[in-house]
Amino acid sequence: PPGKKVLIVYAHQEPKSMNGSLKRVAVEELSKQGCSVTVSDLYAMQFEPRATRNDIVGCLHNSEEFNYGVETWEAYKRGSLSSDVLEEQKKVQEADLLIFQFPLYWFSMPAIMKGWMDRVLIQGFAYDFPKCYDSGLLKNKLALFSFTTGGTREMYAKGSINGDIRYLLWPMQHGIMHFCGVKFLEPHICFAPERVSEEKRMEMLIAWAERLKTLWEEKPINCTPEWYFK
Amino acid sequence: PPGKKVLIVYAHQEPKSMNGSLKRVAVEELSKQGCSVTVSDLYAMQFEPRATRNDIVGCLHNSEEFNYGVETWEAYKRGSLSSDVLEEQKKVQEADLLIFQFPLYWFSMPAIMKGWMDRVLIQGFAYDFPKCYDSGLLKNKLALFSFTTGGTREMYAKGSINGDIRYLLWPMQHGIMHFCGVKFLEPHICFAPERVSEEKRMEMLIAWAERLKTLWEEKPINCTPEWYFK
Repeated sequence: PPGKKVLIVYAHQEPKSMNGSLKRVAVEELSKQGCSVTVSDLYAMQFEPRATRNDIVGCLHNSEEFNYGVETWEAYKRGSLSSDVLEEQKKVQEADLLIFQFPLYWFSMPAIMKGWMDRVLIQGFAYDFPKCYDSGLLKNKLALFSFTTGGTREMYAKGSINGDIRYLLWPMQHGIMHFCGVKFLEPHICFAPERVSEEKRMEMLIAWAERLKTLWEEKPINCTPEWYFK
Repeated sequence: PPGKKVLIVYAHQEPKSMNGSLKRVAVEELSKQGCSVTVSDLYAMQFEPRATRNDIVGCLHNSEEFNYGVETWEAYKRGSLSSDVLEEQKKVQEADLLIFQFPLYWFSMPAIMKGWMDRVLIQGFAYDFPKCYDSGLLKNKLALFSFTTGGTREMYAKGSINGDIRYLLWPMQHGIMHFCGVKFLEPHICFAPERVSEEKRMEMLIAWAERLKTLWEEKPINCTPEWYFK
């Protein structure tokens, strides 16, 4: 609805890819609804995935022994995180909904997107102790993982060789988003777009656009182990 | 035993860290046994985690639409992957055992190590179709995930808020290693080293050294969903 802010964190090298098209469909449909949409195009930004000392501007809290978690937490409080991290945090802060759009790499997100998680979701900003899980600092936000797979739907069914697709959602949805207090909507999965016809890929894009039309009426998933492993 | 080759893929910024110490203990103990030990120190190497066009030397198979999986597969066959990837593949090829040493970041490995998986374990080298899972191209190798956590053992027990630690091992052990045909040993987990005394940390290091003494007698895990989610 008008006024809602959406951040799309997008990780694909090729604008003409299925992921590129899914991203474009989301920008168009959500903009049409009157949402304000921002895209972090990680490859185009050459986003840095490595968690290093460079993420802290100026002196370290403890220059004898580098501890990334402690240093970035302290830097967050002092306002001395590197500017690329601060920019992403600002986008997250302003967003009502985060959409992560990526091809599944090794049962997870590509390293460039994992680096976004590692570097942006800093203690003090995204969570703290005891402000985690349902009281995480990003509560009142929604997230949605939208991704493509190499394997077919059948290969990701319970009892098949890859196991239920939900098994691999646990670290991403529960371990990252839920930990920060973010509620999430049903993931949007396009199975094996490279193995189907151009027509079928077009149907996948239309299905995504259709879903987005009523996205704001959806209820978040109740994130319990039963949802993943039952 | 003498003659065995071990590759340690190590992802920590600080040599004085617990992960740095665990890595050193492994190098020392395995060398003492007569193993030949190689370390890929990813942060020190400034290892590139991003999967991009730069991984292919020379012309692309399809320069109209970049597909990382297809391009790296083709480049592998032509021998035109970038030299940093080729070097890591050579180390993997020669190794009998791969040890991954890292701090758990967001229920998974740090982005720099995920990037190692994304870029090194290329189709044609690590797997092919149908040469995956038990017939993966890296069969006859062993792997072991050795990592530290922020949360305590109790926080990663079944029924507790983080869920069973085994839930988050599924994408790493099954989705990556098993997919490539690699068998793996019980993970080695140091829970919350930052929350315990120096003495307790020393005990953790000694326990790791002790385990390594009889590591070659261990039997691989039987990687079924039951092991993870029962």
